[in-house]
Amino acid sequence: MRIVDIRETAIPLKSQLANSSFDFSEMTTSVVAVITDVMRDGKPVCGFAFNSTGRYACGAQMRARFIPRILAAAPDNLLDGAGNLDPDKILGVMMRREKAGGHSERSVGIGTIEVAVWDALAKILDKPLHRLLAERFNGGKVPEKVFCYVGGGWYFPGQTIKDLQDEMRRHLDAGYTMVKMKVGGLPLAQDIKRVEAVLQVVGKGERLAVDANCKFERDDALAYAKALAPFKLRWFEEPSDPLDYALMAELAGFYEPALATGENLFSIPDVENLVRFGGLRAGRDIIQIDPPQAYGIATYARTVAMLERHGWSRRQLFPHGGNQMSLAIAAGLGLGGAESYPGVFGDFGGFADDARVTDGYMALSERPGIGFEGHSRLYRIMRDLAGL
Amino acid sequence: MRIVDIRETAIPLKSQLANSSFDFSEMTTSVVAVITDVMRDGKPVCGFAFNSTGRYACGAQMRARFIPRILAAAPDNLLDGAGNLDPDKILGVMMRREKAGGHSERSVGIGTIEVAVWDALAKILDKPLHRLLAERFNGGKVPEKVFCYVGGGWYFPGQTIKDLQDEMRRHLDAGYTMVKMKVGGLPLAQDIKRVEAVLQVVGKGERLAVDANCKFERDDALAYAKALAPFKLRWFEEPSDPLDYALMAELAGFYEPALATGENLFSIPDVENLVRFGGLRAGRDIIQIDPPQAYGIATYARTVAMLERHGWSRRQLFPHGGNQMSLAIAAGLGLGGAESYPGVFGDFGGFADDARVTDGYMALSERPGIGFEGHSRLYRIMRDLAGL
Repeated sequence: MRIVDIRETAIPLKSQLANSSFDFSEMTTSVVAVITDVMRDGKPVCGFAFNSTGRYACGAQMRARFIPRILAAAPDNLLDGAGNLDPDKILGVMMRREKAGGHSERSVGIGTIEVAVWDALAKILDKPLHRLLAERFNGGKVPEKVFCYVGGGWYFPGQTIKDLQDEMRRHLDAGYTMVKMKVGGLPLAQDIKRVEAVLQVVGKGERLAVDANCKFERDDALAYAKALAPFKLRWFEEPSDPLDYALMAELAGFYEPALATGENLFSIPDVENLVRFGGLRAGRDIIQIDPPQAYGIATYARTVAMLERHGWSRRQLFPHGGNQMSLAIAAGLGLGGAESYPGVFGDFGGFADDARVTDGYMALSERPGIGFEGHSRLYRIMRDLAGL
Repeated sequence: MRIVDIRETAIPLKSQLANSSFDFSEMTTSVVAVITDVMRDGKPVCGFAFNSTGRYACGAQMRARFIPRILAAAPDNLLDGAGNLDPDKILGVMMRREKAGGHSERSVGIGTIEVAVWDALAKILDKPLHRLLAERFNGGKVPEKVFCYVGGGWYFPGQTIKDLQDEMRRHLDAGYTMVKMKVGGLPLAQDIKRVEAVLQVVGKGERLAVDANCKFERDDALAYAKALAPFKLRWFEEPSDPLDYALMAELAGFYEPALATGENLFSIPDVENLVRFGGLRAGRDIIQIDPPQAYGIATYARTVAMLERHGWSRRQLFPHGGNQMSLAIAAGLGLGGAESYPGVFGDFGGFADDARVTDGYMALSERPGIGFEGHSRLYRIMRDLAGL
């Protein structure tokens, strides 16, 4: 078999969302199709992915470097012993002539292509990606469902406390048992009122996380941590600059409940620095790498192995993304759970049309690959890109 | 005044060079022109820059995000109180709607535009950039020359020890007093023979640095450090992964001469982590950030201030690049010195045509701005881009 083409298109998210730190009005994402010469039902098997949310489309890097390197490579450098796609070898080909460091400039483009390669590989093997990942990376333990929480509670103009409570009631009514809300977009006293209002709806601190999206300088980070600690929330996410490990260690020194971070780290050395120098507590805190933004699934599995060497449990890992890619990865690798963004991020939010959440767990589909074919709004974009 | 256009073009380096870790055969760079409506001698004042060497062209990010944000901004958000360009404000405009972390994906594009803004600003003020920078960031201490060493000793097929010695003799004959050579591309014993051969030419360890370009895993890094220590070299550069601060600290724990690193760090938090966790010694080791690749000159000046808070001296800072941008920055900010790549990197290597080195020091030109106008091969590309 061979890869006959790799295509990319940049799609605007058309989102009016804002968190404490920035808005998504210019945000785009790269949708990728890896087209193989393997035929099923008269059509070529294609793998799909997109570069998650929060990082801009990166088609230029793909077209200038990663795609030509793959298309020019000898089959031996792309295929495994069984003649199927080998994601690790393909990663190696994409990394040729890349200088050390400088990860985010390439990790998003490479990771998105790599995830699309996994989608194609699982389809050729005729199994869902979560099953393939469980076989390769979790001793074959294939789950039927994954814990899933809602990343919501965004700020919007004119929002009242009641609007926020109504949103959270909708999430609980939809079957979720845990929600996350934004903090840092209003003064501390007002944010605490919002937290208290959401706690009235969800009942317990362990059912609510808060996310500051890296907003705070040191003084505000300390003030928020002190004010939030008594609520014993599920976690306090990204209080400050994602690379300020010294401040994270200072917070971990006194903030008793879980801290969470990692969606803005893009390489294994960065994540290892976080756990070496960031003061995080292996039995308690949460790490949230985004696999398609951080070199893809093979690298994510190596990140998990590195974290296990540092004493971390997979239950402490929640991949960022709120999409079917992260869902399959959380399921296949036996992680703590996945995020969900119902009703936001346009065609790129949400899961398959028939996805259902019960008591906080999302049932997994048996569709081959990642299962984008079951997400009709998103799949329309992918199908058009591949010319299917 | 206003910025009427910002243009970018990607140019292949056409370099056949290789270090221990990768070759430059696909390498490109972005050349930028910031075109103002200020007229001098009947032509618009234009600022120029390029994104140094080792990172690929990044015009797509510029065209999709940074250039439109500048061209759409109100003059108040771009100009200082005197109505001239304000690089800090322009940086803030480019950073709108950018998510925390993920620096290298944008720091190269933003930094290249920012350096071109400084070139235009200095030209409008009719002074060389190094003088403007000295006034703003070094108490007005304007130097007449800068220490400059040669980054050479590259590997090439069929190279003999005598070839390498001949190269180093040419550098000494050209007026340089310090050279750098690559290590890590051959087995340790052969690399040590190369080092000994170069030392025969340059005379003393303090006149030779070695650069491993991040090649080594831990065992090799330790072995090279042990083998190199007795030569008391000027510095041992980038032994390992640029983000592996733990290994750097281990090396700094026993390797007595200077270590050097930093050209693969792209943000202030990364550099602060290096000095907090990397075990580097403020009075001894060398930090080599590349300003156009790391958000530009205003950010570089803030990096210097951060390092001074950590006890570092400006004499320990050698900006990466080997071009007129780094030369002006080293001069203006009173740094330890600059690098030079004579005869390599095609049109992007070297300095002004009339640049002369005497006893290891490069004399500074009085051309307004960075002085690209004096570098005829490179300026031809810039002039064509700006339509001058």
